[in-house]
Amino acid sequence: MLEFTLQHSDPTGARVGRIVVREHAFDTPAFLPVATQASVKALTQEELVRLGAEIVLANAYHLYLRPGLGLVRKAGGVGRFMRWPRATLTASGGYQVFSLAPLLEVTENGVTFRSHIDGSEHLLTPESAVQIQHVLDADIIMVFDQPIGYPSSRREIEEATARSDRWAARCLESHRGASDQAIFGIVQGGFEPDLRTASARRVTELPFDGFAVGGLSVGEPKAVTFDLLSHTAPLLPADRPRYLMGVGTPTDIVRAVLSGIDMFDCVLPTRLGRNGTAYTRTGKVNLKNARYQEDFDPLDPDCSCEVCATYTRAYLRHLHKSGEMLAARCLSYHNMHLYLRLMEEIREAIRADCFRQLADELLQKGTENG
Amino acid sequence: MLEFTLQHSDPTGARVGRIVVREHAFDTPAFLPVATQASVKALTQEELVRLGAEIVLANAYHLYLRPGLGLVRKAGGVGRFMRWPRATLTASGGYQVFSLAPLLEVTENGVTFRSHIDGSEHLLTPESAVQIQHVLDADIIMVFDQPIGYPSSRREIEEATARSDRWAARCLESHRGASDQAIFGIVQGGFEPDLRTASARRVTELPFDGFAVGGLSVGEPKAVTFDLLSHTAPLLPADRPRYLMGVGTPTDIVRAVLSGIDMFDCVLPTRLGRNGTAYTRTGKVNLKNARYQEDFDPLDPDCSCEVCATYTRAYLRHLHKSGEMLAARCLSYHNMHLYLRLMEEIREAIRADCFRQLADELLQKGTENG
Repeated sequence: MLEFTLQHSDPTGARVGRIVVREHAFDTPAFLPVATQASVKALTQEELVRLGAEIVLANAYHLYLRPGLGLVRKAGGVGRFMRWPRATLTASGGYQVFSLAPLLEVTENGVTFRSHIDGSEHLLTPESAVQIQHVLDADIIMVFDQPIGYPSSRREIEEATARSDRWAARCLESHRGASDQAIFGIVQGGFEPDLRTASARRVTELPFDGFAVGGLSVGEPKAVTFDLLSHTAPLLPADRPRYLMGVGTPTDIVRAVLSGIDMFDCVLPTRLGRNGTAYTRTGKVNLKNARYQEDFDPLDPDCSCEVCATYTRAYLRHLHKSGEMLAARCLSYHNMHLYLRLMEEIREAIRADCFRQLADELLQKGTENG
Repeated sequence: MLEFTLQHSDPTGARVGRIVVREHAFDTPAFLPVATQASVKALTQEELVRLGAEIVLANAYHLYLRPGLGLVRKAGGVGRFMRWPRATLTASGGYQVFSLAPLLEVTENGVTFRSHIDGSEHLLTPESAVQIQHVLDADIIMVFDQPIGYPSSRREIEEATARSDRWAARCLESHRGASDQAIFGIVQGGFEPDLRTASARRVTELPFDGFAVGGLSVGEPKAVTFDLLSHTAPLLPADRPRYLMGVGTPTDIVRAVLSGIDMFDCVLPTRLGRNGTAYTRTGKVNLKNARYQEDFDPLDPDCSCEVCATYTRAYLRHLHKSGEMLAARCLSYHNMHLYLRLMEEIREAIRADCFRQLADELLQKGTENG
């Protein structure tokens, strides 16, 4: 299903590898642009290819509700539906069911909820979440889990984690033999290191193609996130891809690579782009700030992207303030360029055994400039 | 200021020409994509160049209010501000003052109004409208006029037209010697042929670089529009460009070219694009229509644009229904491609003396398919 070649580990624990899954391949550490509804917001698939994205993440909850499985099946799966020529991964929708949909009932069997779009009633179980992802036919699918908010009591974490771990086993069981897609397990455990250990033990004894660290970056302090990550990552088998779901800023990614993480997804480059904020190598530029009113420099003077080669901060600020779509396009494009260049640079540095130095430099700039 | 070379007129009255203004040139009949706030909605300047746009229209009212003249002056004019490498034209803002802004007072001197953005009070006179356009520094500027709604009484039309014609003279007076930009007069007269004649006589005796037909396509029936156009167009000097403001659909453009019009602007390709509708050679495709739910054909099977080469109607419909910006991008791009290819085809047909045939074919398809 999935072949992971670990090409190089450096002294920090950071690793470079290559994943081959069905007819697609991608280098790790990899960043997955988020195409929740089968579109990375404001960008075209052609732009993403040009920027070097090798895999995108779509969302099973969203696509199941709209446009629905019938259409995606007829289109030949989510990759063909959106005309994305490279690898795809679907999130199971566990997080979305619990965050977007009015919940009706949560039992050991699954979750009954109302669609956030039309109020219709639906049941998602580990088995149906896997079947939905079979129809969507991404190269990699994820188990269905019950998220844990921050803060939560130890008892709540214990119960939700144990249930998610049982659901993971049910997902794997209903996946086995039914599809040539790869499937990843997700380690939970909330904010309790020993519960992380217990979850990792239970999930990693199952023959998943890769393992995700779930339930981080849900509102807890960064120190907590990275303490838990450095506790959890080493519990995952070294010969399988490690995926940190929903994380994060460029600085977060650098720190997580130091813990040996191989895959990331995050809405930040496009969400901040729509919100008027650009990432740069020396911090964020929030165009809503009046200091950029008459600033005729590019968004990021160190950037080689088309946006920075063409437009000024003053113009992009005007577009953002005026509600022009071109602002979101330009900022999302620039931010995605920065993320994907960062991943390239990280992979090169690991290969050259100088990632520690790059990480120190990036983390210092990141800390100084937010 | 502006050099208009009439290259060929065909037996229908349709004409092909070339306009050189300052360092820019463009072929006519020309379509001007509308960049109201210094951006053609959803498209980049690079895309517009690639699509063959040679001149865009920006709006003085909007840019005066936001980002303000100080910034555009420092940026070197609207063309440099938006990094548009080709010709530019500004509308004076007369239409916007009367349609968007709460009016406080209209006198012979000018119009006092409140900004639709922040409620601040402003006075626009023919002289200040010209001065604003001097700062914006487009290659072609337009006189400041008082629009006439449909329907209006003969008395209302008479008064507003006479005032607009006096304002046109004041605009020209304050422009003369102050700028190397070209300036166009606008013929008014509402829906009364004899008032059109009177306005054309008054405006065309002034040495404008070109003449626009204003006040059409403001809600009146199409038959009225084209009766008035075929009445008015021949009253304009044949050796100057003729500009039909704010018109129109592809079919409208074909009909107006038959009346000898050289320039057009319209928000339709981008507005309909944002609204989920694509123009095709055989009519409109409204993706909100359920018949496109499982339609895996391109938007327009006869189109060679990147959108039609890549995405299906079913996918674009899903994007539109899901509120994804990519829908607006793709449909606006396709529609603009269609408009600019249409202009190219029109120019070629006129040159080859076969525009009558092309027009008949396009008008028949347009009438059959809306």
